Amino acid sequence: MRLAAVIALGFLAACASAEAPAPAPDTPVRSLGEILEQSPASDWRTVDQDNLIYMQLPRGRVIIELAADYTPNHAANIRALARAHYWDGAAIVRSQDNYVVQWGRDEADPRPMGEGVASLAPEFDRPRAGVDITRLVDPDSYAREVGFAYGFPVASNGQRTWLTHCYGMVGAGRGDTADSGSGAELYVVIGQAPRHLDRNITTVGRVLQGMELLSVMPRGTGPLGFYETPQERTAIASIRLGSELPESERVNFEALRTDSATFRDVIESRRFRRESWFLDPVGHVNVCNVQLPVRVRQ
Amino acid sequence: MRLAAVIALGFLAACASAEAPAPAPDTPVRSLGEILEQSPASDWRTVDQDNLIYMQLPRGRVIIELAADYTPNHAANIRALARAHYWDGAAIVRSQDNYVVQWGRDEADPRPMGEGVASLAPEFDRPRAGVDITRLVDPDSYAREVGFAYGFPVASNGQRTWLTHCYGMVGAGRGDTADSGSGAELYVVIGQAPRHLDRNITTVGRVLQGMELLSVMPRGTGPLGFYETPQERTAIASIRLGSELPESERVNFEALRTDSATFRDVIESRRFRRESWFLDPVGHVNVCNVQLPVRVRQ
Repeated sequence: MRLAAVIALGFLAACASAEAPAPAPDTPVRSLGEILEQSPASDWRTVDQDNLIYMQLPRGRVIIELAADYTPNHAANIRALARAHYWDGAAIVRSQDNYVVQWGRDEADPRPMGEGVASLAPEFDRPRAGVDITRLVDPDSYAREVGFAYGFPVASNGQRTWLTHCYGMVGAGRGDTADSGSGAELYVVIGQAPRHLDRNITTVGRVLQGMELLSVMPRGTGPLGFYETPQERTAIASIRLGSELPESERVNFEALRTDSATFRDVIESRRFRRESWFLDPVGHVNVCNVQLPVRVRQ
Repeated sequence: MRLAAVIALGFLAACASAEAPAPAPDTPVRSLGEILEQSPASDWRTVDQDNLIYMQLPRGRVIIELAADYTPNHAANIRALARAHYWDGAAIVRSQDNYVVQWGRDEADPRPMGEGVASLAPEFDRPRAGVDITRLVDPDSYAREVGFAYGFPVASNGQRTWLTHCYGMVGAGRGDTADSGSGAELYVVIGQAPRHLDRNITTVGRVLQGMELLSVMPRGTGPLGFYETPQERTAIASIRLGSELPESERVNFEALRTDSATFRDVIESRRFRRESWFLDPVGHVNVCNVQLPVRVRQ
């Protein structure tokens, strides 16, 4: 069938110098794969197993990197809850189309939190000073400045900086008060970036592997996409901290440093689309439309 | 369990005067439901059954409105293909996470196209002149001007205007040449808006009902999310034009006019979030984060 070429995804990508207004027409086109293959080892960082949580679902494993540089107290609490095996027997309780999939424990089935807590002061943002942001030049609908820092998409108003709610980002659910969350209940973005949640909720990390297990969860038919019966929920066998797993069960991720020259090339390859399929090279990109490359070291 | 209030979605919404910089603190807060309930009947339009296609899947029906004002030739071709029952026995062939779900016929299993064609001149954009766009005041990463026209999200550069690739928008797949699509192969956006496809592909409409049937299709493991075996595909029993269906099988949609005062109130309720859950009222919105209200007339 001839469907295969219908939409180019972007594995064939153009290369341009960092944040130049437009690549010269004779700039050699490198695919995204080529950009990554030709990158120096120093442009990659080993993802700390102390910042990885492994969630075991019936159909496979979801692995999330905690954004400990932005939300250190929530990262510490999530580590403590994972060490206490707090989520063993928890469940996916909500799947709302174009919004979030969410998981946690049922209040009727509590479990000791170990060193963890159920309520924590929010970490909606942090001071901008001292954070090296790889900036995007295109405007953003929600913030004065957007870009990437410590491997995550971020925004800033000049004084404060925060993680942005892009597809695959993970946040700590909360109730009506700012400190009613702690990371014990988590959600992941499965649709158009709900950027109105930025600075309203503590964003704690992003999914590095297994996103496709969460995004296809049947949508719940209750209010806000909650499942109406326990039978609709998907069981979580366990959530473990990478550093507590046996070596053989870990995945050794390397993530492209978002302050590297290679990542600037990745951004430009997303801004200017010079693959043959593109009739219009675009010349713009949104902070939630830039891939954050990750590879697995065997 | 206490999860239910964790993330407010926005059924409780604030009202503000149209595109004012900020609502006065004492502006009465109306929920989105209240805004819609209090709207005059003249702010709604009956969706033309000649612009509706009904796709029958094993688990339910997907209904798509064609954007005939922007892409009239593709709308006409899709109507012709539906009348020819061209898609009976077609299939969902692709599901790529955070991108698109796509359907069409296998080349090995052709079917007469009736008055329809397999190749059509593109309708990537149209003249801006004469189009009444309800504009958003917030900047956009991709276009000088964004807003809504004829019930759809749109962008413009001042001279030309085009439909934007938001979640739930439907496009006509194409190969490498501009005229290699015709609407015979269609896709729907299931993730972060791939706005780099704007003006590179003809966008033909949006899903009004049944989006949750498409968005949860298991992701394909082949390149670009294509299914690797026929067994993974989901069969399409039929695609029919609304005006060809018996009255009893039609859904009588009313869509909020995007040039109405009520819709301007909807936009402002999305820009300024005054529901009690929101600690920061946001004050911004992206063109792909505004709901386009639709209701069913019983």
